[in-house]
Amino acid sequence: MAGNEWRAYPVARARRYLEPGPVVLVSSAWAGERNVMTLGWHTVMEFSPSLAGCMISAGNHSFRLIREAGECVINLPTLALLDAVVGVGNTTGASVDKFERFGLTPVPGEVVAAPLIRECHAAFECRLAEDRLVPDYNFFVWEIVRAWVKPAPEWPQTVHYTGDGVFMVSGETVDRSADFRPEMLL
Amino acid sequence: MAGNEWRAYPVARARRYLEPGPVVLVSSAWAGERNVMTLGWHTVMEFSPSLAGCMISAGNHSFRLIREAGECVINLPTLALLDAVVGVGNTTGASVDKFERFGLTPVPGEVVAAPLIRECHAAFECRLAEDRLVPDYNFFVWEIVRAWVKPAPEWPQTVHYTGDGVFMVSGETVDRSADFRPEMLL
Repeated sequence: MAGNEWRAYPVARARRYLEPGPVVLVSSAWAGERNVMTLGWHTVMEFSPSLAGCMISAGNHSFRLIREAGECVINLPTLALLDAVVGVGNTTGASVDKFERFGLTPVPGEVVAAPLIRECHAAFECRLAEDRLVPDYNFFVWEIVRAWVKPAPEWPQTVHYTGDGVFMVSGETVDRSADFRPEMLL
Repeated sequence: MAGNEWRAYPVARARRYLEPGPVVLVSSAWAGERNVMTLGWHTVMEFSPSLAGCMISAGNHSFRLIREAGECVINLPTLALLDAVVGVGNTTGASVDKFERFGLTPVPGEVVAAPLIRECHAAFECRLAEDRLVPDYNFFVWEIVRAWVKPAPEWPQTVHYTGDGVFMVSGETVDRSADFRPEMLL
């Protein structure tokens, strides 16, 4: 990842960033077109292979690109990118290049054709793992095949959507590892 | 919900509490047995019907109860319940009644047999909607058929798991509704 602060990160540890439930920016590319969408409906599903499930509504312009490519990138924005998060979620890629409009810099990935977003704290390159629930639920299961994370800050301020235009910003961390059974910390 | 602060809440608005990604306590009951587990791997999947997807590992004692009953309750704990959240996640219902051990009060639901947890800020009664991904991924899709929420505080402090025994506590809220297209606020 030349010219970038990201470092390679173990894919099996992606849960650190995704399990707390932040809004993410999902980028895609297909047949010369690219796009990015805002997404809050996702969950970790497994450590290894590293799986993440995403409900990507078929009403989104990104849906076709993602469905055809069978790939995407899950990018983790921070509070500093909230204008872009809101803007991306309130425009359609059918009429706007959202990267240009919202000052997001596309960066080539190592495995997938979809662009990573340089301004994000982390980026997870994803390949389709399971699509049985796509026809009925628009629910994709992705395997995270590469993970890139900025080494600092240790705890980026993430934004978490509650609906009605209101976001919750991540707060303090509480370390309760001393109360965990050792095998629960693997 | 006699003797309780909860009020009925529109099931289509459950995303307000679940989309930000908090740790939840999933309670279950089957054949005279009851249990509760800690869960961070869940996502909203639809407004109406109100759907939530949960990865419930088959290694959990709760798995069989939930699988057999086809029902559960998703309870939303706050920071005040962190001792119980950690305790529930580090014990097994095979040898302990976790309700008694951790001071959680089971309350009968209106639709499902699984108990609601009185100390939680909110409780969502769930019926199985979709189990095609259970055999391969332990992934259940639930329909939230009743929702109960305490009217105060407006923004409870929720806890969000990051792994390694560390929790993020929900912070401030930021209202950006003025920047949303009206149809995005429905």
